[in-house]
Amino acid sequence: MTFSTQLTINFGDTDPASLVYFPNIFHYCHIVMERFFHERCGVSYSALIQEKRLGFPTVQIQAEFKSALRYGDVIDVELAVTKVGNTSLSLSYKLIRDGVVCAEVSQVVVAMNLDSHRSVEIPDSLREHLR
Amino acid sequence: MTFSTQLTINFGDTDPASLVYFPNIFHYCHIVMERFFHERCGVSYSALIQEKRLGFPTVQIQAEFKSALRYGDVIDVELAVTKVGNTSLSLSYKLIRDGVVCAEVSQVVVAMNLDSHRSVEIPDSLREHLR
Amino acid sequence: MTFSTQLTINFGDTDPASLVYFPNIFHYCHIVMERFFHERCGVSYSALIQEKRLGFPTVQIQAEFKSALRYGDVIDVELAVTKVGNTSLSLSYKLIRDGVVCAEVSQVVVAMNLDSHRSVEIPDSLREHLR
Amino acid sequence: MTFSTQLTINFGDTDPASLVYFPNIFHYCHIVMERFFHERCGVSYSALIQEKRLGFPTVQIQAEFKSALRYGDVIDVELAVTKVGNTSLSLSYKLIRDGVVCAEVSQVVVAMNLDSHRSVEIPDSLREHLR
Repeated sequence: MTFSTQLTINFGDTDPASLVYFPNIFHYCHIVMERFFHERCGVSYSALIQEKRLGFPTVQIQAEFKSALRYGDVIDVELAVTKVGNTSLSLSYKLIRDGVVCAEVSQVVVAMNLDSHRSVEIPDSLREHLR
Repeated sequence: MTFSTQLTINFGDTDPASLVYFPNIFHYCHIVMERFFHERCGVSYSALIQEKRLGFPTVQIQAEFKSALRYGDVIDVELAVTKVGNTSLSLSYKLIRDGVVCAEVSQVVVAMNLDSHRSVEIPDSLREHLR
Repeated sequence: MTFSTQLTINFGDTDPASLVYFPNIFHYCHIVMERFFHERCGVSYSALIQEKRLGFPTVQIQAEFKSALRYGDVIDVELAVTKVGNTSLSLSYKLIRDGVVCAEVSQVVVAMNLDSHRSVEIPDSLREHLR
Repeated sequence: MTFSTQLTINFGDTDPASLVYFPNIFHYCHIVMERFFHERCGVSYSALIQEKRLGFPTVQIQAEFKSALRYGDVIDVELAVTKVGNTSLSLSYKLIRDGVVCAEVSQVVVAMNLDSHRSVEIPDSLREHLR
């Protein structure tokens, strides 16, 4: 399962070197995950959180930044679901500008009940969209 | 070489689950790196950037989030210099609340001239503080 | 001169009350100003900054937040140019959800040379697009 | 009632012009309001929110930015309570570097129950600290 979407690097996301301040790259990945839920999984992340009290906090993440992203760049982000566990989900992201992969991110998120703050099984209704 | 400092989790850093939005954990790490330069390396990161046009963009980072950080938490962050290369620097961070390590981060940054955007050797004046 | 564009409230922009953390509303306004330059003024803000060293820092801003914006809301933002001075520009923004104005913002920005950090006249090439 | 505290301008808060990205100035003001509650009002904002479900969202704000704040600046922020109403609170902030007021902000916040999302009277226990 892959998903692709486009983002623009905003002025406020960049630093005195005109490069993206790297924590914002993870903010971009989260936005892409939200779009993926909404556009491919038949449920918005906001509905999951507010109605079902189900969230997906990050437990592991790693990233390689190969080429600097600059203010004004328009990038394609490719999300891939690399593993679907009982309670966890592995996702990878490629941030691509003009065909060149500028950053690669791998992330593990865990399904969590936001009231009990405990991990829960990924619901079947969501699971079928992740394959 | 280790360095320890304290941070408070701000309201604006947290999400609808009252947990820290994880990209902000990397913002915290950067703030800690800035304090480390200022308090231990005899030079402020702002002077490095503005006067010497020397920056340390991140090229690799990985993190494990073991226990959620919540709004209002006061945490200790321990930075350790784990490797000093010719042009690169490896740093690790532990984010600790009440003696419990809630997050661990490993980062590689590279010395870069901010005009040429090329990597450069870490200056000796800085290197001696990193050992 | 008016301009309208659409934004989605991201997870990372909201607070423990699931409402937008209000400083992010100003981030939204800046993004809208950037889109306005790009789509209506024939020049990208990034080109202005990087090539012409011309920026538009904010010198005055006021806002009324009438109705809370929540995670997942899709909003229309209407930008209007309310005054074009020699060196300054007055802009207003309405953030609208389902036809209801949730926030109103008025802003004065000043054309500034980013090297000298002094105010400069708004270039004619830009001025003609602002009328 | 006035309150004074110190902040440092972080790398990640600044823009390609090495100036503070102005939405972050409002983030600073919120941090100062949180410190004010904690240090002067006998209650942490996190306890208010999490235990009493009482928050203070902003309904009006205006700011004048007189002199640019730059990366590395250490500033004093002076908060003053300018009016205490039944349900609302007016606050002002001065951001001062080396004795010079660089920014002035006026804000109106409203006491709100975070479950009902309705305004409520400011509790007497808090009110007595605001005079």
